[in-house]
Amino acid sequence: MITLDFSKLNGLIPAVVQDYHSGDILMLGFMNRKAWEATLASGRATFFSRTRNALWVKGQTSGNVQVVKEIRIDCDDDAVLLKVEQVGGAACHTGHRSCFYKKIENGSVKVIGKPLFDPKEVYRK
Amino acid sequence: MITLDFSKLNGLIPAVVQDYHSGDILMLGFMNRKAWEATLASGRATFFSRTRNALWVKGQTSGNVQVVKEIRIDCDDDAVLLKVEQVGGAACHTGHRSCFYKKIENGSVKVIGKPLFDPKEVYRK
Repeated sequence: MITLDFSKLNGLIPAVVQDYHSGDILMLGFMNRKAWEATLASGRATFFSRTRNALWVKGQTSGNVQVVKEIRIDCDDDAVLLKVEQVGGAACHTGHRSCFYKKIENGSVKVIGKPLFDPKEVYRK
Repeated sequence: MITLDFSKLNGLIPAVVQDYHSGDILMLGFMNRKAWEATLASGRATFFSRTRNALWVKGQTSGNVQVVKEIRIDCDDDAVLLKVEQVGGAACHTGHRSCFYKKIENGSVKVIGKPLFDPKEVYRK
């Protein structure tokens, strides 16, 4: 039986997504209980979108789904780590491989790497 | 100028801590603005403890501080990634190297690895 503690952030827990092969951190999302159960059941990373206030299967729009290879939970049962295979190569809606593409250097922000796709092409109506 | 968005979680942002050398995820903490500024100024991972409701220099009690080697922020400026050198080898208060030492396998939880120290020894009064 797996019991997570959803009480600390009003029903949400943070979920770190790590590339299964390279170990790079791809993104951080939030899960409510339904997103957690959907992730377990489907094997596809599923989050709760705070902006859309709805369940969010990562990659549903772009096709860049995350195939879950391994799941870890932390000491306090209030954080999740997903090790995934990132379909399409890029996890970020900006087209970057990782959402963490901004590095702090000498007190300012430096963009690391280039987008792998053009968001305007992927998310156009 | 570095501007983070502390508005989404009542003044807090999640901060993922990754081992600079191995790429392993060590823990996830939360930062308020003061913790973020203290991390930048001191080069030591500093969080906001939700249970103690206070600034928390990681490793202050155990000696297992985290020396910050690189800082990344994400696309939305609402999550932080710290790449650190983990002094003492273990990040978790249980003595485990990583807080994410519980793996989900076939619907149940399996502990991975063994503690590197005895918490009773480290945190005794």
